[in-house]
Amino acid sequence: MSVDPGDLPTADFLFRLADAADGETLPRFRRAGAVDNKDASAFDPVTEADRAAERAIRALIEAEYPAHAVLGEEHGSTGEGPFRWVIDPIDGTRAFISGIPVWGTLIGLTVDDRARLGIMSQPFTGERFWADGNASWRSDRTGSAENRVRGTTAIAEAVVFTTTPRLFGGDMLRRFEALEAKARLTRFGTDCYAFAMLAAGQVDLVVEPGLKPYDIAALIPIVEQAGGIVTTFEGARAEDGGDVIAAATPELHAAALDILNG
Amino acid sequence: MSVDPGDLPTADFLFRLADAADGETLPRFRRAGAVDNKDASAFDPVTEADRAAERAIRALIEAEYPAHAVLGEEHGSTGEGPFRWVIDPIDGTRAFISGIPVWGTLIGLTVDDRARLGIMSQPFTGERFWADGNASWRSDRTGSAENRVRGTTAIAEAVVFTTTPRLFGGDMLRRFEALEAKARLTRFGTDCYAFAMLAAGQVDLVVEPGLKPYDIAALIPIVEQAGGIVTTFEGARAEDGGDVIAAATPELHAAALDILNG
Repeated sequence: MSVDPGDLPTADFLFRLADAADGETLPRFRRAGAVDNKDASAFDPVTEADRAAERAIRALIEAEYPAHAVLGEEHGSTGEGPFRWVIDPIDGTRAFISGIPVWGTLIGLTVDDRARLGIMSQPFTGERFWADGNASWRSDRTGSAENRVRGTTAIAEAVVFTTTPRLFGGDMLRRFEALEAKARLTRFGTDCYAFAMLAAGQVDLVVEPGLKPYDIAALIPIVEQAGGIVTTFEGARAEDGGDVIAAATPELHAAALDILNG
Repeated sequence: MSVDPGDLPTADFLFRLADAADGETLPRFRRAGAVDNKDASAFDPVTEADRAAERAIRALIEAEYPAHAVLGEEHGSTGEGPFRWVIDPIDGTRAFISGIPVWGTLIGLTVDDRARLGIMSQPFTGERFWADGNASWRSDRTGSAENRVRGTTAIAEAVVFTTTPRLFGGDMLRRFEALEAKARLTRFGTDCYAFAMLAAGQVDLVVEPGLKPYDIAALIPIVEQAGGIVTTFEGARAEDGGDVIAAATPELHAAALDILNG
């Protein structure tokens, strides 16, 4: 089905969704007793904030766009059709429960399976990063600006981010370490915040294995509309998640994939 | 030489020092072109912000406490005597140049080589953590509160932080991985922010090998006056840096050192 771009929701609606989520997440940040486990055998914290934020986002979408489908981390998939909202109410739950403000609420909109709009909200720092279908933007307490990736083309000059080397297994870990050895600098522990910094021209490469659709859908347009590239390790569209790489330039993307794919 | 506790500077003076530093760091955060290298063979960024912040802090100390000694990361050691300020103008320069707001300005005061006062300032998030000689405190844009470590005693329940597993070599890496395997959760990439979160009761254990005195002096009183413990891996005072562990409780400290010392 083809969709008229004029049918896209506006950035104002993204802000309303983010406001609703912030109202559930921020008051619970750094409050004790917020930890719960999905699976008793592993540490997979899901806070009340996670659930309440997704409920708040879904309620606004249902009221405003009842025909749209929704996929959320906490409450699953509802509806069908070309428009699908993809929600991770708290990306970086481990950062959240540790008090580190690099988690974010991710809300993306795919149209015919392609990510077109997205917002990342980090209410403790007061930051938002969003893509409105044409351009990528950020705001903080001091104002707003358009996002633009920087022009780094060589691995030797690249700042590389990943959440943790522990997510890479076997051969993939060795290949990631080869990338790390060639890069200017590698940092860990950033979750969605790394993609936002890539869009804002602060870092050059983000590598994250094993993502779910809701971990990446909102971030794809934020990076792409800032001039960057997001794909799987196979070079395919990343809306369905998987092993994902985001790069500031095509040259850097190609050079990193050469190393990561051995 | 014995020192009258009444001679200690007040928290107001710590805030003046932090204000002066913030005025040099925050305007340069996320501005391009701030990267410089101390050593062309390694990536060791030192920004203008680093140098200017230390100059601003030293100028206030010299004006107010001309008899005090100062040790700073950027401008070395000056003066002698029982009072010594220990300054890291930007702890977490790698976070700083990557746009991640978990760096901080660290300013500590040792009296007869024992850390008594300290402040960590993170001006982008608007947070400060400080120890006034009696208690440990934090403030953010919403207000202030006293810091208190939490009561975790078992490794299996502990949230563990370290900046990067890449700082552990050989046997120490294997022992850190053994600790990681037993812990509830391990996170990377936090620099001084991890110690602040320990004091604030958000995490339980921080392990950092190879610290310099200015990486830790300001943080010792912030953790200790919140009820926590900071030592070297040998269990000695950590004012001189080295391989450092900070823990919420004596039980957790002992259990972690058993693993880290093999």
